[in-house]
Amino acid sequence: MNDSAAPDVAGWTCPLPLRDYPQIVLGHGGGGQLTADLVTHLFVPAFHNAALAPLADAAALHLGGQRLAFSTDSYVVRPLIFPGGSIAELAVHGTVNDLAMVGAQPLALSAGMILEEGLPVGLLAHLVERMAAAARAAGVSIVTGDTKVVERGHGDGLYINTAGIGLIPPGIEIAPQHARPGDVVLVSGSIGEHGMAIMSVREGLAFESPILSDTAPLHGLVAALLAAVPDVHTLRDPTRGGVAAALNEIATAAGVGIRLEEQQIPVRPEVAAACELLGLDPLYVANEGRLLALVPAPAAAAALAALRRHPAGVHAARIGDVVAQHPGLVVAHTGIGGTRVVALPHGEQLPRIC
Amino acid sequence: MNDSAAPDVAGWTCPLPLRDYPQIVLGHGGGGQLTADLVTHLFVPAFHNAALAPLADAAALHLGGQRLAFSTDSYVVRPLIFPGGSIAELAVHGTVNDLAMVGAQPLALSAGMILEEGLPVGLLAHLVERMAAAARAAGVSIVTGDTKVVERGHGDGLYINTAGIGLIPPGIEIAPQHARPGDVVLVSGSIGEHGMAIMSVREGLAFESPILSDTAPLHGLVAALLAAVPDVHTLRDPTRGGVAAALNEIATAAGVGIRLEEQQIPVRPEVAAACELLGLDPLYVANEGRLLALVPAPAAAAALAALRRHPAGVHAARIGDVVAQHPGLVVAHTGIGGTRVVALPHGEQLPRIC
Repeated sequence: MNDSAAPDVAGWTCPLPLRDYPQIVLGHGGGGQLTADLVTHLFVPAFHNAALAPLADAAALHLGGQRLAFSTDSYVVRPLIFPGGSIAELAVHGTVNDLAMVGAQPLALSAGMILEEGLPVGLLAHLVERMAAAARAAGVSIVTGDTKVVERGHGDGLYINTAGIGLIPPGIEIAPQHARPGDVVLVSGSIGEHGMAIMSVREGLAFESPILSDTAPLHGLVAALLAAVPDVHTLRDPTRGGVAAALNEIATAAGVGIRLEEQQIPVRPEVAAACELLGLDPLYVANEGRLLALVPAPAAAAALAALRRHPAGVHAARIGDVVAQHPGLVVAHTGIGGTRVVALPHGEQLPRIC
Repeated sequence: MNDSAAPDVAGWTCPLPLRDYPQIVLGHGGGGQLTADLVTHLFVPAFHNAALAPLADAAALHLGGQRLAFSTDSYVVRPLIFPGGSIAELAVHGTVNDLAMVGAQPLALSAGMILEEGLPVGLLAHLVERMAAAARAAGVSIVTGDTKVVERGHGDGLYINTAGIGLIPPGIEIAPQHARPGDVVLVSGSIGEHGMAIMSVREGLAFESPILSDTAPLHGLVAALLAAVPDVHTLRDPTRGGVAAALNEIATAAGVGIRLEEQQIPVRPEVAAACELLGLDPLYVANEGRLLALVPAPAAAAALAALRRHPAGVHAARIGDVVAQHPGLVVAHTGIGGTRVVALPHGEQLPRIC
């Protein structure tokens, strides 16, 4: 790999290579194949280093005798406020959760705000207060920040970037690469609520019981899980691209197959109904307060019990297994006895979800 | 202070209070009084905590026996590529320099990219390679990242956020609050080049010798300075708002006055000419590779010599003193024997400079 020259686009041979897209399309931000192409063929070769290589939700750095987790996410969700949350809670929970997915307890966040000229100061103040409240509730401090303003028409109200640092407890080794055949796949609750909450607002759908985003911090749930089962192999929060994208990434990173039992996957009736109405598959819809845990089979019952004992995991369920067959592929056994491939989504099912 | 309710806008009594601005204006991003209002009256009360309180360029966190510096900046510069640099170098140098301004040696950066639909992939690849090259040259790794895409017309090509972590060596205590009467003010080189490089492109100005941005990493220069003079009181890189804003912030934070000798401030002839042409004061023009160092008078000669021995500081100069008089005010002795107040800029002299 030549790390000093510009990428040789002509040589890219990946499926759906970047050279098929001379310009950035919305799908490059969707958390699916197009995003993976950008990361694999552009960012990783350019920035290559040992900490970046595992492509976990957070990088792990050795610092003195400790392991520091470091992660970042930008938030560009529309609308800024939606049922069950806002960009403010997402900006705190999303980065806290990325840290939690390597087993870290969060220590501090940064906040980089890109404001668009014309944003009402009262709305900004409201969102900053919500961000502060979410940070307090999660027990994490926002310790440094930056504010930029772009001209009217060159931004979109408010974009927030947060980066976070946390400490990984000794003995905890969680990574997408650590999934092993025989592991059990657990999900911490019902899926698809965040994405459908956004979608219902954008599409103007009204349901008897409104769908609320599941946005929530997950580090407490992870701590409870690790206390019961320190040998968790893999954690992932299924945000953009949903459970389908998260499990495909794990299957690829670990070189394993994943088999889902579709009927075991918890989906609330209103989410299922909304998905059916809009022709969406809940497996591809974003979550902001759920995690997938891959644990050795002998520890699965203890792990599930630990998740269910925590308020953020009461609806946890066992939804599948890791297998040696079909490495890199996720398949689902359907309710009627069939099997389907749950492919990595190509691009964007619903842009600007987070 | 009530930290759970929304800010009571009616109660704000600061000069130029936020309540005079029901909407965000460009000046809120200018690094001057309006930015300070946002930070002081909105972000700090909401997020308040001990690490944020000093409002240094980076927060300092105790972690085990070590002190970790943590900082973030978003970059929204226009144009993306300008004489002497690009958004890519700024995104690396700016955050490395924020870490350096508390005396830290940078360890790792995050990169959060907000791409606009339609951005040429080739341009993105070029800028990512430049970012990687700048990081390699600075000896810092980009270890974690995130990519979002916003619809055409809702972004501006590319915004980059970087956050950075670094280690503060034992015994180093650098903060705006530590400036003391009797300290000497040093600048590491000629001022105003970054801002005028941007301005010359935007205004279509042609000079015999083009003005190049001074963008550069400063942690090596800081390490050389601290090796010679560990008792540096204050460091600041005069970016948005220039030397004027940086020194005003220090004067306010430390409750001291600052007296500049205008004729001692190094300004290259082409920068002086361009500033005169456009009616700008170089003291207010942004720099991206310069630092201000406030050191005790007995150490000033050693500090200046250490700066000048380093390639990034060959044109370092002694430009003023810290005084007990006029706390919070910066004044300049002009060439013709007069004295003028160098006020904190109100808003934005040149939007989207970094």
